[in-house]
Amino acid sequence: MTDLARIRAAADRLSGHARVTPLLSSPFLDEIAGRRVLVKPECLQHTGSFKFRGAWAALTALDDATRARGVIAYSSGNHAQGVALAARMLGAPAVVVMPGDAPRLKIDNTRALGAEVVLYDRATEDRDAIGAEIAAARGLTLIPPFDHPEVIAGQGTSGLEIAAQAAALGVTRADVIVCCGGGGFASGIALALEGTDLRVRTAEPEGFDDMARSLDAGEIRRNATLTGSVCDAIVTPQPGRLTFPVLQRLAGPGLVVSDDEALHAVALAFQRLKLVVEPGGAVALAATLFRAPEIEGDTVICTLSGGNVDAPMFETALKRFLYTL
Amino acid sequence: MTDLARIRAAADRLSGHARVTPLLSSPFLDEIAGRRVLVKPECLQHTGSFKFRGAWAALTALDDATRARGVIAYSSGNHAQGVALAARMLGAPAVVVMPGDAPRLKIDNTRALGAEVVLYDRATEDRDAIGAEIAAARGLTLIPPFDHPEVIAGQGTSGLEIAAQAAALGVTRADVIVCCGGGGFASGIALALEGTDLRVRTAEPEGFDDMARSLDAGEIRRNATLTGSVCDAIVTPQPGRLTFPVLQRLAGPGLVVSDDEALHAVALAFQRLKLVVEPGGAVALAATLFRAPEIEGDTVICTLSGGNVDAPMFETALKRFLYTL
Repeated sequence: MTDLARIRAAADRLSGHARVTPLLSSPFLDEIAGRRVLVKPECLQHTGSFKFRGAWAALTALDDATRARGVIAYSSGNHAQGVALAARMLGAPAVVVMPGDAPRLKIDNTRALGAEVVLYDRATEDRDAIGAEIAAARGLTLIPPFDHPEVIAGQGTSGLEIAAQAAALGVTRADVIVCCGGGGFASGIALALEGTDLRVRTAEPEGFDDMARSLDAGEIRRNATLTGSVCDAIVTPQPGRLTFPVLQRLAGPGLVVSDDEALHAVALAFQRLKLVVEPGGAVALAATLFRAPEIEGDTVICTLSGGNVDAPMFETALKRFLYTL
Repeated sequence: MTDLARIRAAADRLSGHARVTPLLSSPFLDEIAGRRVLVKPECLQHTGSFKFRGAWAALTALDDATRARGVIAYSSGNHAQGVALAARMLGAPAVVVMPGDAPRLKIDNTRALGAEVVLYDRATEDRDAIGAEIAAARGLTLIPPFDHPEVIAGQGTSGLEIAAQAAALGVTRADVIVCCGGGGFASGIALALEGTDLRVRTAEPEGFDDMARSLDAGEIRRNATLTGSVCDAIVTPQPGRLTFPVLQRLAGPGLVVSDDEALHAVALAFQRLKLVVEPGGAVALAATLFRAPEIEGDTVICTLSGGNVDAPMFETALKRFLYTL
């Protein structure tokens, strides 16, 4: 399983290949949240999301012969791009299984980064089964989007950066709000922060809050549906078998925001941070700004997990929340 | 005058107060430019532009009693916000003289950051005269937007970061394209890079290319008009008396791009870098991407000087250049 040593080893392998993203802030966001807000913008990571970290960690953990045969991933888009770029940088072939309704930009980028893209219907088909079948037929190694020790370790490298960057600002105690789909990012960061006074809280969109309900119930709960959210990047059937026990042990109660709140956070990240964030990547900022009473401490840290948003969706957010200024 | 020692001293004073912005890249931008592109995103600096650097350097160079009486600035918006925030952080009163047609966001932000805003008509009134009059009447110290040794030194701290960050990537020879209004940012960076093989090139919008024409003529040339560009942030009457000789000595030929090319660069920064850039802050990226034959070397470095753009202008850029995808 993933532990701090595995995360540190992943950080060594990522050094010089992944970006160390900064820790940003804005007095305007502090005012809305009623406390100091520190933002970890993983939208600035290679391929526009934290997923490159886990992909690089997983691919560099393979032996050379295995990696050379190639890898396969199934993903709503951000993991796809992370695996595609990491594979290209490492000279490995990559196949990516993506839902047909993923944002066009994500599908285009994944292809442009050299991967072979296989599309499926998110409502009727099972991406895990499709991925496993192609992997077996071609001798490819499956790189799952979250439930994998090296993927979790790779995402956790962001947590090591958060701890060091927050300490440099004098912050050693805070809730760390993390956008949550299957829980790879959140559990990786939670493990990186274990033993500190920085506590992970997951953030999810309403109606797709499987992690919050699972944490509350003490056992895994599924989402009733997998379509209909603007937060496509973080809609997954249920918490992972590896990620859930980690978050059950280390995370506080899950936070849940509406689609409108996520879009409002997209608009505020545009206006106050000069960052492009996709709705699913903005749920942690939305929880930070609009769920203040559920958060503890003078300072809060939140992730912006990705920025791969199509222009029309981005405009919707700006129109709805900035044109009345 | 400004020299490397003064820039290093400014960097010491900025340490822990200004952000060290990262050096970003995208394989998609490399492909358009036909060479490796490294991007210095000063839109991520405090107040959304590099101007905070110069403002902080100038205010911290004042003696305590002078600073406590207060400062005044005249600015189309970004210098205004930089001075307002630096003054607030240092406990000094600030008055800012702004054109009435500046983007609403910049005026609002300057007020929200605690400054008193005085508006004037850019077409008929002289902001220098207005600023000097108020300064004299109230005993305030004028912080000019570019033609000031400490302001230039502060902007130059970005050049020290560029040199160190590029060297860490193995890049020691490149053109460094800098968005240019009065030339404070470009001359500061040029001085910081003096003696290296990193050479500054200014970038300006068509019709407001006073620096390119002045460099070409060997003497200062004025712009024929001061209105009508989407690049409001970098429209100034003419090169500065301090900045021009520096750029005449150290910079290569000036680069000029159209408003449409600046907007195209805004759209590409959204799509490929996940950054919000204003049109005036995107002219260096536009020159990097669309003036490749005029640029030398395997690698090019460019600044994104600011991100304070109103939502409708940003949407115009996305609509024009991304909706046909």
